[in-house]
Amino acid sequence: MKEISGGLCAIEGVLTSGVHAGFKRKKKDFSLVYFPKGATVAGVFTKNAVKSHHILYDAKLLEERTEFKAIMTNSGNANACNGEQGDHDVRTMAKIAAKQLNIKPEEVLICSTGVIGVPMPLDGFSEKVELLTEGLNDEDSLSAVEAIMTTDTHPKQTAYEFDIAGEKVRLAAIAKGSGMIHPNLGTMLSYIVTDLAMNQSLLKELLLKAVNNSFNLVTVDGDTSPNDTVFLASTQGVEVELNSSNIELFYQALESLCQELARMLAKDGEGASKFVEVIVKGAGSSADAVSIAKTVATSSLVKTAIYGQDANWGRIISAIGQSQPESINLYSINISFKSAAGEILVCQAGKGLTFNEENALKILSQKEIEIIIEMGVGESQVQVWTCDMTTDYIKINADYRS
Amino acid sequence: MKEISGGLCAIEGVLTSGVHAGFKRKKKDFSLVYFPKGATVAGVFTKNAVKSHHILYDAKLLEERTEFKAIMTNSGNANACNGEQGDHDVRTMAKIAAKQLNIKPEEVLICSTGVIGVPMPLDGFSEKVELLTEGLNDEDSLSAVEAIMTTDTHPKQTAYEFDIAGEKVRLAAIAKGSGMIHPNLGTMLSYIVTDLAMNQSLLKELLLKAVNNSFNLVTVDGDTSPNDTVFLASTQGVEVELNSSNIELFYQALESLCQELARMLAKDGEGASKFVEVIVKGAGSSADAVSIAKTVATSSLVKTAIYGQDANWGRIISAIGQSQPESINLYSINISFKSAAGEILVCQAGKGLTFNEENALKILSQKEIEIIIEMGVGESQVQVWTCDMTTDYIKINADYRS
Repeated sequence: MKEISGGLCAIEGVLTSGVHAGFKRKKKDFSLVYFPKGATVAGVFTKNAVKSHHILYDAKLLEERTEFKAIMTNSGNANACNGEQGDHDVRTMAKIAAKQLNIKPEEVLICSTGVIGVPMPLDGFSEKVELLTEGLNDEDSLSAVEAIMTTDTHPKQTAYEFDIAGEKVRLAAIAKGSGMIHPNLGTMLSYIVTDLAMNQSLLKELLLKAVNNSFNLVTVDGDTSPNDTVFLASTQGVEVELNSSNIELFYQALESLCQELARMLAKDGEGASKFVEVIVKGAGSSADAVSIAKTVATSSLVKTAIYGQDANWGRIISAIGQSQPESINLYSINISFKSAAGEILVCQAGKGLTFNEENALKILSQKEIEIIIEMGVGESQVQVWTCDMTTDYIKINADYRS
Repeated sequence: MKEISGGLCAIEGVLTSGVHAGFKRKKKDFSLVYFPKGATVAGVFTKNAVKSHHILYDAKLLEERTEFKAIMTNSGNANACNGEQGDHDVRTMAKIAAKQLNIKPEEVLICSTGVIGVPMPLDGFSEKVELLTEGLNDEDSLSAVEAIMTTDTHPKQTAYEFDIAGEKVRLAAIAKGSGMIHPNLGTMLSYIVTDLAMNQSLLKELLLKAVNNSFNLVTVDGDTSPNDTVFLASTQGVEVELNSSNIELFYQALESLCQELARMLAKDGEGASKFVEVIVKGAGSSADAVSIAKTVATSSLVKTAIYGQDANWGRIISAIGQSQPESINLYSINISFKSAAGEILVCQAGKGLTFNEENALKILSQKEIEIIIEMGVGESQVQVWTCDMTTDYIKINADYRS
């Protein structure tokens, strides 16, 4: 699998644009992914019981049809909890975009991200869309991903080329997300495009599985959002026989790509100073493994200890207990910390070890930390990605809206 | 119900002591509640699957017997995850205390709170117990409560006198807790004493119910502890006929007292600058009401917004959705903020209202804030107590162990 440049534009038949259109004060805030010849799209959305207006709209469209030509996204305003006006505004956005692109409104998927409960400012929206379409290019999707960022500090995009059945297949994605990250099935915003020809139901099946093994294993702050959306689109450019081994080849690439984006999200978590991978091994079941890893990764006390570079494994074992796993034997739990500076076992058989604090500090002072938990009661394992919790997280979120 | 002074010592037959014995560097760290004539005791403990050694010991004792003479507590060391040594150390502590007090080891309940996974330092423990018993007094339990504090900034104790069937009954309690607060059945440390004569099973029944309606409705950081313990003891000093209305009278006093302590815990949450009461009304069921209120009260994003005095109700409605209530109708949800400076409705029928930001700021700049959520789908209501999440929370927890 070879990394290539250009983000989504690495794939033929994909144009993108990102501009400042006034949803935010200064930054780029309006983004378009355009498939002039169309693409087959599958989507997964947040499981939050409060859903933004764009999700209600897109989910219905995806049930009714398989082919789309545009994904238009604004940042700065989530268009969530705006009542009937919110539903009306999504339809208006699609209509105006369709008119400008000379396509049908039902060929446009709409996404929004930003502040909840403030009506969409649609004054002069036609001019904004005009500006957006003028910016379309087939070179690089960098500006398109910059325009969907909220508190992200880095744009997140990636693209790969690999062979399936002798044909070169490409797979590329953009993503945004930094806070309110604790995905439950759907997650944040991410648009993934491939040229491998597949129908909508296969795209959806593979996407669900990949999301479950990637974005659903990230947490920044334990909060889920009403706007989480992931699309997987196929431009149908490359046709190969879709036997099970070819599908598996593609799935592996898709899962790697989603996991790469998931790690990017955790690394760019709001205020993060460290990237943390929580690895649970030897759990009694897959459900136990996920629940243990997520509870540890969500614990404010664990995350502040990592920020403080403090090998306070007592908070980790306490979070393990809090997750109420079905199989647990305190006296078979081992915990270690690992980083580029080495590895240190701090708890063995459920009991603290006397360890060299200086060595622990050296390990924990790295930027990327692994917390390795051996449950010793089974064979299941999982890793969850998160970041530390810092004073900057508080500062960012104490005045996000102002 | 009249507030009285002296804490636990307001009750005849209760002596207390609190001293510095070297578990911590400087602060008081060793505490004793002593019933020379004995008391009937019931207890509830953490539901965390990882339990400290004192809980395993006390829970077994409470199954075997009903009468006790002492509750001895050290802070600075949790005696959790110390393997067989941990179990052995609890027994040693009880034996040495019993010898010094000239009672039986099985009449002593032991509690520990502090750092997890560090063996109990029991060198010179007899001398420490001697120091502790020398400090016994029947005037005020203030030093006993100071000695069980960890990151608490205030000692928490309270005492009441009220009439049942023409007799004066007293009820008093001490408590500690500031971080790792998200009780599940049992919680933090709290010792409650009454002189009303009751047997252990009635004490336990009333305690479970009161804990469920008080300590189990507090959250500071979403983390539960392996050491949470609440005891309710009766010195059997006042005998009245225990008909259902007298029991109800006592229960109401007990619930009020537990709720008062629960509010104290939230107010003294680590780094807290504001006390927050999350009130959910009109929920479809009691389980929905509790789950909604707890999810809102645990959300880092809601808590940082309150710290920032930002009426960012979008995070509240998002947390409501995240709690996955069985009954939810977005278009019947109302949200307001209330404080001594007034009340402001910010979301009506699931939709943002244009509100006066200056007025909102005035309301949110108070020290005590209510978040009022009307779900509009039923009759169930509950209130949960928490605090805001501040940069000080991060600072306290980044270097707790060091």
